[in-house]
Amino acid sequence: MEIRFRREHDTLGHVDVPFDALWGPQTERARTNFQISGMTLGRFPHLIVALAMTKQAAARANARLGLLSHEKCDAISSACDAVIAGGHFDAFPLDPVQGGAGTSVNMNANEVIANLANERLGGVRGANEPVHANDDVNRSQSTNDAYPTAVRLSLLLAHGDLDQALCSLVASFEERAAVFAKIAKLGRTQLQDAVPMTLGQEFSAFATALHEDVSRLREMLPLLAEVNLGGTAIGTGLNAPKGYAGIALNELSAISGHRLTPAANLVEASWDMGAFVLFSAMLKRLATKLSKISNDLRLLSSGPRGGLGEIRLPAVQPGSSIMPGKVNPVIPEVVNQVCFQIIGNDIAVTMASEAGQLQLNAMEPLITFNLHFSMQMLEAAIRTLDKQCVRGIEADAGRCRTHLEASVGSATALVPLIGYSRCAELANDALRLDRKVAELAVERGLVSGEQVDFMLDPMTLAFPV
Amino acid sequence: MEIRFRREHDTLGHVDVPFDALWGPQTERARTNFQISGMTLGRFPHLIVALAMTKQAAARANARLGLLSHEKCDAISSACDAVIAGGHFDAFPLDPVQGGAGTSVNMNANEVIANLANERLGGVRGANEPVHANDDVNRSQSTNDAYPTAVRLSLLLAHGDLDQALCSLVASFEERAAVFAKIAKLGRTQLQDAVPMTLGQEFSAFATALHEDVSRLREMLPLLAEVNLGGTAIGTGLNAPKGYAGIALNELSAISGHRLTPAANLVEASWDMGAFVLFSAMLKRLATKLSKISNDLRLLSSGPRGGLGEIRLPAVQPGSSIMPGKVNPVIPEVVNQVCFQIIGNDIAVTMASEAGQLQLNAMEPLITFNLHFSMQMLEAAIRTLDKQCVRGIEADAGRCRTHLEASVGSATALVPLIGYSRCAELANDALRLDRKVAELAVERGLVSGEQVDFMLDPMTLAFPV
Amino acid sequence: MEIRFRREHDTLGHVDVPFDALWGPQTERARTNFQISGMTLGRFPHLIVALAMTKQAAARANARLGLLSHEKCDAISSACDAVIAGGHFDAFPLDPVQGGAGTSVNMNANEVIANLANERLGGVRGANEPVHANDDVNRSQSTNDAYPTAVRLSLLLAHGDLDQALCSLVASFEERAAVFAKIAKLGRTQLQDAVPMTLGQEFSAFATALHEDVSRLREMLPLLAEVNLGGTAIGTGLNAPKGYAGIALNELSAISGHRLTPAANLVEASWDMGAFVLFSAMLKRLATKLSKISNDLRLLSSGPRGGLGEIRLPAVQPGSSIMPGKVNPVIPEVVNQVCFQIIGNDIAVTMASEAGQLQLNAMEPLITFNLHFSMQMLEAAIRTLDKQCVRGIEADAGRCRTHLEASVGSATALVPLIGYSRCAELANDALRLDRKVAELAVERGLVSGEQVDFMLDPMTLAFPV
Amino acid sequence: MEIRFRREHDTLGHVDVPFDALWGPQTERARTNFQISGMTLGRFPHLIVALAMTKQAAARANARLGLLSHEKCDAISSACDAVIAGGHFDAFPLDPVQGGAGTSVNMNANEVIANLANERLGGVRGANEPVHANDDVNRSQSTNDAYPTAVRLSLLLAHGDLDQALCSLVASFEERAAVFAKIAKLGRTQLQDAVPMTLGQEFSAFATALHEDVSRLREMLPLLAEVNLGGTAIGTGLNAPKGYAGIALNELSAISGHRLTPAANLVEASWDMGAFVLFSAMLKRLATKLSKISNDLRLLSSGPRGGLGEIRLPAVQPGSSIMPGKVNPVIPEVVNQVCFQIIGNDIAVTMASEAGQLQLNAMEPLITFNLHFSMQMLEAAIRTLDKQCVRGIEADAGRCRTHLEASVGSATALVPLIGYSRCAELANDALRLDRKVAELAVERGLVSGEQVDFMLDPMTLAFPV
Repeated sequence: MEIRFRREHDTLGHVDVPFDALWGPQTERARTNFQISGMTLGRFPHLIVALAMTKQAAARANARLGLLSHEKCDAISSACDAVIAGGHFDAFPLDPVQGGAGTSVNMNANEVIANLANERLGGVRGANEPVHANDDVNRSQSTNDAYPTAVRLSLLLAHGDLDQALCSLVASFEERAAVFAKIAKLGRTQLQDAVPMTLGQEFSAFATALHEDVSRLREMLPLLAEVNLGGTAIGTGLNAPKGYAGIALNELSAISGHRLTPAANLVEASWDMGAFVLFSAMLKRLATKLSKISNDLRLLSSGPRGGLGEIRLPAVQPGSSIMPGKVNPVIPEVVNQVCFQIIGNDIAVTMASEAGQLQLNAMEPLITFNLHFSMQMLEAAIRTLDKQCVRGIEADAGRCRTHLEASVGSATALVPLIGYSRCAELANDALRLDRKVAELAVERGLVSGEQVDFMLDPMTLAFPV
Repeated sequence: MEIRFRREHDTLGHVDVPFDALWGPQTERARTNFQISGMTLGRFPHLIVALAMTKQAAARANARLGLLSHEKCDAISSACDAVIAGGHFDAFPLDPVQGGAGTSVNMNANEVIANLANERLGGVRGANEPVHANDDVNRSQSTNDAYPTAVRLSLLLAHGDLDQALCSLVASFEERAAVFAKIAKLGRTQLQDAVPMTLGQEFSAFATALHEDVSRLREMLPLLAEVNLGGTAIGTGLNAPKGYAGIALNELSAISGHRLTPAANLVEASWDMGAFVLFSAMLKRLATKLSKISNDLRLLSSGPRGGLGEIRLPAVQPGSSIMPGKVNPVIPEVVNQVCFQIIGNDIAVTMASEAGQLQLNAMEPLITFNLHFSMQMLEAAIRTLDKQCVRGIEADAGRCRTHLEASVGSATALVPLIGYSRCAELANDALRLDRKVAELAVERGLVSGEQVDFMLDPMTLAFPV
Repeated sequence: MEIRFRREHDTLGHVDVPFDALWGPQTERARTNFQISGMTLGRFPHLIVALAMTKQAAARANARLGLLSHEKCDAISSACDAVIAGGHFDAFPLDPVQGGAGTSVNMNANEVIANLANERLGGVRGANEPVHANDDVNRSQSTNDAYPTAVRLSLLLAHGDLDQALCSLVASFEERAAVFAKIAKLGRTQLQDAVPMTLGQEFSAFATALHEDVSRLREMLPLLAEVNLGGTAIGTGLNAPKGYAGIALNELSAISGHRLTPAANLVEASWDMGAFVLFSAMLKRLATKLSKISNDLRLLSSGPRGGLGEIRLPAVQPGSSIMPGKVNPVIPEVVNQVCFQIIGNDIAVTMASEAGQLQLNAMEPLITFNLHFSMQMLEAAIRTLDKQCVRGIEADAGRCRTHLEASVGSATALVPLIGYSRCAELANDALRLDRKVAELAVERGLVSGEQVDFMLDPMTLAFPV
Repeated sequence: MEIRFRREHDTLGHVDVPFDALWGPQTERARTNFQISGMTLGRFPHLIVALAMTKQAAARANARLGLLSHEKCDAISSACDAVIAGGHFDAFPLDPVQGGAGTSVNMNANEVIANLANERLGGVRGANEPVHANDDVNRSQSTNDAYPTAVRLSLLLAHGDLDQALCSLVASFEERAAVFAKIAKLGRTQLQDAVPMTLGQEFSAFATALHEDVSRLREMLPLLAEVNLGGTAIGTGLNAPKGYAGIALNELSAISGHRLTPAANLVEASWDMGAFVLFSAMLKRLATKLSKISNDLRLLSSGPRGGLGEIRLPAVQPGSSIMPGKVNPVIPEVVNQVCFQIIGNDIAVTMASEAGQLQLNAMEPLITFNLHFSMQMLEAAIRTLDKQCVRGIEADAGRCRTHLEASVGSATALVPLIGYSRCAELANDALRLDRKVAELAVERGLVSGEQVDFMLDPMTLAFPV
């Protein structure tokens, strides 16, 4: 198939742009320069939407300050609406892993919006007039403030998806905890038999651990919402008129529904990646919890005969090409792997953040890529764990009780009564003689039969106070 | 030299303990078992102090609830005071890197305090009576709640040191920023000449970036202050009497001066390392900033002839064994290295946190080790950077001006007036012809001489609004 | 558009498979179960090719041993040829990030090849006869040996691409080094002026550093070529007939052109990920070098007026949306970012490798994903750096000489003559008085004019012996 | 206690050095400048020894070339012998974590050796004559070649310790494997019951996995043995006379017993940290294996009643302060933690390696610190695992058999006979009906009683071919 081109110009010379492309010469150069990850910006729709929102807010602020005609502003604004509505994701063909500190992404937005605006005003693609990509769409902005602002907004948007998935998983764990509330079982520390608890307590702890991260993630949002719009090239605000930043931020908050706030020191905000480092770390924290929980699910469901076997995970696919009848914990396994990837991605974010120099951090595209990639994978993993696994987990109450009754951990409950040393003797003897602690304790006159029935009842031990 | 021993017993048999040692048999076993890092707990005095505070609070709560005689309580409490006062750090000989989920550390505290208490009550070391290490000092506790509680408290204590060092560094950067307020210089993005700013702005951004982390670190403290005391072995509170947790926490808050709060779900709190993961990540965030700032200081002071040379760092030592007269930026270099170590330590914390299983995380000693080690090294690096470097930094205003005047970034300021494309032409010509942008702009009639004097004045450009 | 399905069965029940799909029920289940990374196996063609080669080798070995009819073997072999030729990459729709230790990938191959084979034998898709996915295509194999074997082979195949790209970059650096051979310049240590060298030496060092990694990577190949084919489920070789492993490996070596060798201990080889850890680390080592070199290129090309400016990188795109005329080092910047990602991916590989349990490592899919993803991105980054940057780098010999002449590092050459202390004084005075070392040395009678001309000639200093 | 000082001078002015110190002014400055890690070089004796060996080799080479009098050479050489013999480790008081690219370490060695040599020649400490620290001891060297050479040699020396510890652990696993050779047990993949094997095979795999790393580590030594001695400041060899490098390397090889080889490109070798990155990664690889094995040991010994309980680890200390009789796998736990630290340290090494700039990597001290710290901790962990755990591991053959007999994995062996689908049905039914696979297979006429006795015998299944 023959591709037709239109010839455009930028400050480095001419560029042949595919005839129908909404983008312009700088996007086209970057498209050629960066073919790295095999992905395009279209993979991260929130980022494209946030870019368009930022451009719309800037246009409105410029119009308000008399720096942009209302005609142009309306055209730009309408173009942004079209992008926000999702109609033009394929007009953002760039690799998210790119050099240039986001300039190419920003110019991609400027060029697409300029072309769309010009078409609305009767112009043609590639003419760069009446609306000019730099002089109009990018007016009062630099990549160095517009791009980070859009990135931060995009993370706020993406957070919504993750938050929802995580809340749903928490609810599923809570639901299972309620179902398992009365199932007494052996608690284990360091993989060794400890004292009694219920399976409900075990699952409730999963819910609590994850619910905390719902809260922690939400608490991070104000850090992301602090943007440097109006700082332009290096935070001094050169070429952004007085009053612009405040108006633009108000507009952007209104457009996006997220309350964006101005960074206190725009020079600092131009290079500081601190909020990203902490947000990535928070995703990592969530990953460590999810991985631990997945490990527990795999451990508790190990077997069916030669493992703990206290719970059963739903069988979602045959487990082996050679061993018939085998079913494996494939869903927790994929969650583990996603968690390892998030932890790895966090290192990439960390190194990119450390690599800032002087007035800018040129590595922000990689940070952006990893944060979105990690959030997407976490969200997918969480939804998968929720729907394909947790909701269908069943308890093997019999097996739980077998382990509990065979163990000697209940001797602990007698410590306040007869002291640590005599209890240790009791426990050791019970193990050695293969006897039950309760029987042995009564037999030795350490405690009466009535006392022991109450004191060593698993539910008493699980809820002692 | 001959070492004399006393023979003691624990549940595994007898142990020969050095005759004068304040510790007992379980500590002695652990001392033999773990010789890994070449360090001892004495390296982290805050941890020992926090352990003693926790034991004191527990004793008082037990006494209040009638589980411990007032005589024993007083003896234990007095013993704890002695430990808190710093008199017995050498009685904690264990390697901080150890197996057993902190049991050995907890027993070390129990044994030392029992011996000290018994001596106060007229007893002898090693008798384990009248005060018993397990039945009295450890009363109503398990390692699994007492140790994490102490660890968290120890981090709150250690934070104070770091906070102070960081605030001092921030103040030094602010002081330098004030001194450098009027020194105009070239801003740089992506290591390429950008637009004008002042050296004061550059240093002020360093102060802001670090000051934010003072705040973020403080915001983390409530997460660390949430403890699981009263949960005992697995969070069910077995053997901790009703009311104990509340009383003990109040006591501990009073003793330590830090308001400790109970975790909402004690079963979860027994294994969840989330607060540590986030706190470690916050240290890492600080490390990325410090490293970036150190890189900038090294870059800005590069030279003296073949580099940027815009600032001069204090000469703290000769720089080369072969090149006479060479002075190197050794202080920022050591800060960089500490930052890399903190980032590495964070991975160790992350993996240890992920490795929790079922009702406990057996790897908490490594987490504790790394958090304290990282905080100590960060504090040392920050104090060193502050005192040996930042306070003595001088500007080379002439060099700053030379770079500024040679650059063409000021053309940016004309964009709103004559548009991006014509400005690009202007900038390119200035570079090619080795002319000044201002002259060329006037010569070409793009702007008048008066306009240009004002518009392209560096201080106007650095503070445009 | 309506999608038609065919109903198939596996050991868990029935599955509706898209009517035209070459894959079968287990693939279809996995396709539903794992929607995580947004990528499919088709992204890594070498892996699909290696799977088909492995299946072909197994079929031939089975036929040779009389376990598979020659008719079936020929059909399977022909099906594999079609996959190897690249005709069916879209028949591998699974997410590479998946649970199940590769079982789904293995079954995807078994099912596709069975269907293709059956069509060759006059059968229909989905019939699973005469050729059966498990009993015929997977004959004498388990996922646990067939999948790792294919993964290792796929890495050998992918290495070829990376090797070629890296060799080309080395050649480009060498070519530039030759061009820059006579350009004297200032060497720098710790960003401070050191002693003279040539730009050719600087670029030659880049070539050497990377060439070493060409060698190191090649040296890793035998570790990857050591496979566990024939070990089946857990390395005991259950269901693999005597002689099978040797025949299969010979076939696979012949088919692939890579000499594959049997692991010495198949039980160990079933879970050991050591070769992957080391190979990933080797990619990381290459990343640290590429990143350092990219940093150097950015530093040496910093400016154009306020930086070192000793080299000029090709201008591949305009650098700023606000600063006209600015050109940034976008290519080295993207290389830096890829390097950070590779370092992050290595952590994911490390954690996945550590997470093996008992007789298997269920996380091998993530390891595979990251190794291929890292190799693809490294190769792309290297090609980009080579073609878009290195080949077009130009020297600014004048600037090189200016820095050199302004520096005092040449005083070092006088140390053997007059001692370190007097040289230090000389260097300090030269800096303080803004004089040249050579002049001052002659003036002070430390050395004669003739001596100094020779001794301090930059080319003498750059090539002293 | 009052400390007396002697006043010395360096190129920055005067310094008061403790009167009896063997070190001089530059060491004293560095001692004040760097108080970071709380450790001193004395912690890494191999490094001090290697420094002295390097200085000795250099002195001999200089003497051979007529650049150093034989009297001075003998004095220096004798001083070095004293350091090598271990008599002066306390004369190396510097923090290993330091700025300056190792200059302070190198000067520490130069100053100590100069003082020792001068004392041998009748001089006094601090006089810096007749033997001069820079002009004589450091003759023909720069920190930038002498320090890395010593670092590499020190790693070769330290490797010996690690190698020995690892070989011993391998032997212990092999010994256990022999003892466990006949104990049939259930193999497990993905924590689910798989097919039979022996405990001997399981332990033999541990031995194999670690033995491979004995080999891999040894294979790395030639990379470390490639040194840049003779390159001096930036690799151009300035001030190192013709022939010096070859003679010095021969001497150093003879002194150390390790064959050191010259790097091919000394300019490159001055900044390239590749060998360290790979060696650190190799330590990391070993850590992933040790951690996996420790996890397995903890899993296999879980219980005593509610876990797998197939092996018993030696009880080295009581396990709980609250739960009497509990014994925990504390030795594998500490090994896990050390492994996490090594993986974290590897990140520090990686970032430090990436941070090289132009002709040097100023972060080499951190790399050195981490490599030695990691090797020391690995060695200690391995010895501890060997002696305190592995040698005393016992099998619970009864429990192994119970798990094996309860499982249905043996159905796999019938696949070649009756096909995957019918076997799956058989396995599922055996689980559902709680019957043995063998009985059911015979009952259903799938196989005869004789066949089944042989085919499903665990030892046949463990060693099928």
